[in-house]
Amino acid sequence: MPTYTAPTKDLQFVLHEVHKISESATPGYADLEPDFTSAILEEAGKLSSEVLAPLNAVGDKEGCRLEDGKVSTPTGFKEAFAKVKEGGWTGLDMPEQYGGQNMPAVIGSAVGEMFSASNHAFVMYQGLTHGAATAILAHGTDAQKNMYLPKMVACDWTGTMNLTESHCGTDLGMMRTKAEPQADGSFKITGQKIFISSGDHDMADNIIHLVLAKIEGGPKGVKGVSLFIVPKFMVNEDGALGERNAVSVGSLEEKMGIHGNATCVMNYDGATGFLLGEEHKGMRAMFTMMNEARLGTGMQGLSAADAAYQNAVIYANDRLQGRAVTGAQFPDKPADPLIVHPDIRRSLMDQKSFVEGARAFILWGATLIDTAHRSNDKDADGLVSLLTPVIKGFLTDVGYDMTVKAQQVYGGHGYIEEWGMSQFTRDARIAMLYEGANGVQALDLVGRKLAQDGGKHLMAFFDLVKSFCKENAGQDDAFDTDFIEPLKAASKDLQAASMYFMQNGMKNPNNALAGSTDFMHLFGHVCLGLMWARMGKAAKIALANGASDVTFYETKLTTGRYYMARQLPATALHLTRIQSGADTVMALDAANF
Amino acid sequence: MPTYTAPTKDLQFVLHEVHKISESATPGYADLEPDFTSAILEEAGKLSSEVLAPLNAVGDKEGCRLEDGKVSTPTGFKEAFAKVKEGGWTGLDMPEQYGGQNMPAVIGSAVGEMFSASNHAFVMYQGLTHGAATAILAHGTDAQKNMYLPKMVACDWTGTMNLTESHCGTDLGMMRTKAEPQADGSFKITGQKIFISSGDHDMADNIIHLVLAKIEGGPKGVKGVSLFIVPKFMVNEDGALGERNAVSVGSLEEKMGIHGNATCVMNYDGATGFLLGEEHKGMRAMFTMMNEARLGTGMQGLSAADAAYQNAVIYANDRLQGRAVTGAQFPDKPADPLIVHPDIRRSLMDQKSFVEGARAFILWGATLIDTAHRSNDKDADGLVSLLTPVIKGFLTDVGYDMTVKAQQVYGGHGYIEEWGMSQFTRDARIAMLYEGANGVQALDLVGRKLAQDGGKHLMAFFDLVKSFCKENAGQDDAFDTDFIEPLKAASKDLQAASMYFMQNGMKNPNNALAGSTDFMHLFGHVCLGLMWARMGKAAKIALANGASDVTFYETKLTTGRYYMARQLPATALHLTRIQSGADTVMALDAANF
Repeated sequence: MPTYTAPTKDLQFVLHEVHKISESATPGYADLEPDFTSAILEEAGKLSSEVLAPLNAVGDKEGCRLEDGKVSTPTGFKEAFAKVKEGGWTGLDMPEQYGGQNMPAVIGSAVGEMFSASNHAFVMYQGLTHGAATAILAHGTDAQKNMYLPKMVACDWTGTMNLTESHCGTDLGMMRTKAEPQADGSFKITGQKIFISSGDHDMADNIIHLVLAKIEGGPKGVKGVSLFIVPKFMVNEDGALGERNAVSVGSLEEKMGIHGNATCVMNYDGATGFLLGEEHKGMRAMFTMMNEARLGTGMQGLSAADAAYQNAVIYANDRLQGRAVTGAQFPDKPADPLIVHPDIRRSLMDQKSFVEGARAFILWGATLIDTAHRSNDKDADGLVSLLTPVIKGFLTDVGYDMTVKAQQVYGGHGYIEEWGMSQFTRDARIAMLYEGANGVQALDLVGRKLAQDGGKHLMAFFDLVKSFCKENAGQDDAFDTDFIEPLKAASKDLQAASMYFMQNGMKNPNNALAGSTDFMHLFGHVCLGLMWARMGKAAKIALANGASDVTFYETKLTTGRYYMARQLPATALHLTRIQSGADTVMALDAANF
Repeated sequence: MPTYTAPTKDLQFVLHEVHKISESATPGYADLEPDFTSAILEEAGKLSSEVLAPLNAVGDKEGCRLEDGKVSTPTGFKEAFAKVKEGGWTGLDMPEQYGGQNMPAVIGSAVGEMFSASNHAFVMYQGLTHGAATAILAHGTDAQKNMYLPKMVACDWTGTMNLTESHCGTDLGMMRTKAEPQADGSFKITGQKIFISSGDHDMADNIIHLVLAKIEGGPKGVKGVSLFIVPKFMVNEDGALGERNAVSVGSLEEKMGIHGNATCVMNYDGATGFLLGEEHKGMRAMFTMMNEARLGTGMQGLSAADAAYQNAVIYANDRLQGRAVTGAQFPDKPADPLIVHPDIRRSLMDQKSFVEGARAFILWGATLIDTAHRSNDKDADGLVSLLTPVIKGFLTDVGYDMTVKAQQVYGGHGYIEEWGMSQFTRDARIAMLYEGANGVQALDLVGRKLAQDGGKHLMAFFDLVKSFCKENAGQDDAFDTDFIEPLKAASKDLQAASMYFMQNGMKNPNNALAGSTDFMHLFGHVCLGLMWARMGKAAKIALANGASDVTFYETKLTTGRYYMARQLPATALHLTRIQSGADTVMALDAANF
């Protein structure tokens, strides 16, 4: 069975030596001293590796069961959920007035990475609750906040998000679920929603469903969509639970993975709902927390890749097979371990350099969200909006590929459920699909974000890269060759791709959209290149300052050099594809595929 | 539920217009006139789409069961197996004297593609039988051939291959299964084998296990491995079945996919076995049919990709979501179908251009095998030996990626087992692992095949590309630009990579092996580039000759242009990675991963 070791040391390195969070002017960041964050990360790491990780395979094997309209979760989930509640983890970055600890998102992200890596399906019960609570926090009335948030922050009640219907997911304008206004100001919600994660379960007293629906007589399409709070049990004025609402689980979906999470078809049969935010502004309300939600999904790509990678390393060190081509390294053993073989190392280095780069990228994104929210910084908000589809799309695409690589290290054993490596790939697969399929992320990036505010945020990104290169070039030939030059070249490819879109997307938008996924990946590589350059610089400084753990920092530099030499050059391929335009993509009639 | 349409027209195009098989001098090829092959393909296609494909999801859902030591297959498998037997499909390319039809391997490949695409797990029962029969044909005594082959060719008895033990797969020198010589010339086989596909089932009267084991007192390592025939039921001299042999199923493996095939742990407890071929030459005997077996596995990459692609196309035409960016294409419908979106088309074109290129590649490989065997042509044998790891490794790696892309077209529905797209990826995953994991293919290619016979076969490949370019350049500017120039550039990258290995692999073999997987992919792209150039040429000729189905040939040209513009340029990235050498790959101590 797979194990999980919390990467607390690496998280600390990124938080403090790379992003230097406690030196930031963002409100709340000054408190985030290394000792303080270390204590939090150690605690969350312990919970992850000791409580959540051992339940990961259990959840996969048992799955959830629907009996008599009630969903029960796999063995051990209830007890583990109690421990998560006990630690107050859901409220980490929630306001104190609702029982939270008001910490910045960057800490929530660091903790979330470990939770998700140890048990993706389990953590979704809490994650959806956090998402729903965030929506109520942003759009609820004071009465709604007071009624729901303390219970949700404590995870006594959990939450869900209900968007998708069987005939529409991305295109929510076609939604059919309807809301009929009642005399008392409430609404009767009628319709069916599918793919509802954590839709029902046995770990909380109540479930607060956030449901998108159309108020009768409202505008057509997405402009007529409103958001509603639909509790599983009605809540009395005194906070006590009242009668059961007319919402029920139609069925549980059989899925490729995340079996431990109950993915429900939800039936709303005239259920009582309460408007959240303004009428017909439901899409806006739902998308308020989109940057955070998509950052969280991108993180799942990283998390899955790290969990799978860690186990691949263990297996590569344990499994004896063949001899090193340069001569036996363990002549007293019947064979050398897999890790002596260059192709196995190549695969592990692909994984390692992605995981560590992605970690820095996610935490950078989280600092931008904090700066945007806590300092009301429009530039940070614009930049993170631009980066969000890249974080979501690139990290889940590549994160999935990395779980496949980790599985491959096991040979035939990777295919057998007993070893647990199949689960990492099956679970990771969902992150490319939900929270907006990755093609939709690419469309958002190229069709909307690039040109937002006159392209200002893309320019700001290029400036960041440029100033990093300018500040750090010319001091150390090796650093220039290994880090600065490759980063410059990759950034140049990104600029050329942007230029191609500007010149050719105007006359025919298909020329831009045919290259959208390639652009998202190109952009992702440049971001990871920038992260590795920053990490390389931090490692160099630590070594120059006589850090005691020389191996840690030298390993960082080697891993960074690997990324720069072997992964970053993918930018040129993406640029080539982008510049080939839309001709061959759009040429065929639909009937000729 | 997914459907499958047999690609008979495309197979005919490749067989007759691209590879021109009936014009070949290879014995047996003159008979392969278009009408004749068309009749065979239509029949096999019908069986595939009407009988095998509808059982694919059934097999996945039900899986196999082990009760009282007996394995039962999913509902409908028995009846379908009877139909496969009835059609004589196992004996298609087997000698007439054992009941076969003695057809060339190229026809077996074309049929095999459709069988495998329609039901991967099911077809393995027959596929393993074919493999075991081929080994007996190559190494058995006349008595053995007469005893086993007629029954196996008829699929009254099926076959298995027993190589792997729990502690060794690739490195079979560590094998522990032992064979004790008996006075009557037979052996007592004792040991445990794992991952035995089709190890037991309820569709045949007997199962002929081919088992690798070490004769006591023989040489150490792989030089002491022999191959044995171990029947499930002993066979009397008159061919009647005798008593049960001491071989039993220990358990069924729970796997990520191919649930319809019984993957068994097999226990040999002093089972009676008969030497097949020479003592201690078991590896050689087992590997005789390696080129065919690996070509068959590479084909599974193509098959899975085609089956998944076909369904993605149907979904992309059916599912309404969003509007074309250039304006609504179906204004009377609530939304346009997915296929109007450039990124969906980009994904479908990736799949289509891979599938069609891979089909031509597989069939080319099969013609080389025929030429090698039927004309005893050493050059063809050397070339197909060189290409075999590319066919196996590249086509299964990329084929898997394509199933993931096809699944992505479905959005969230791709993750739900109900739609069947998850099964394509889960089933396709095995092909990267069995018959030698793809890292082992890359090692075989770079460590062994490149330099074989003084590098003669690699040179022969480059000459093929060069002469194609020379013969076809300068006649048509568009063809030069779209096909010849990209092929030349890609081939140059392959030459540069080979040169790098020669110059740097000598001083440190790690420099070659760190680039082995990239080299395998680089080579694969050049092969598909060559296939597309040949297909493009064939299409051009057909159009010039006034072919009636103009759309078919123009679609071929467009698809080829897409591959050349968007996929083939990956060669440059692979070259860059290869040329970065082994330094960063080998730098870390095993403890620092």
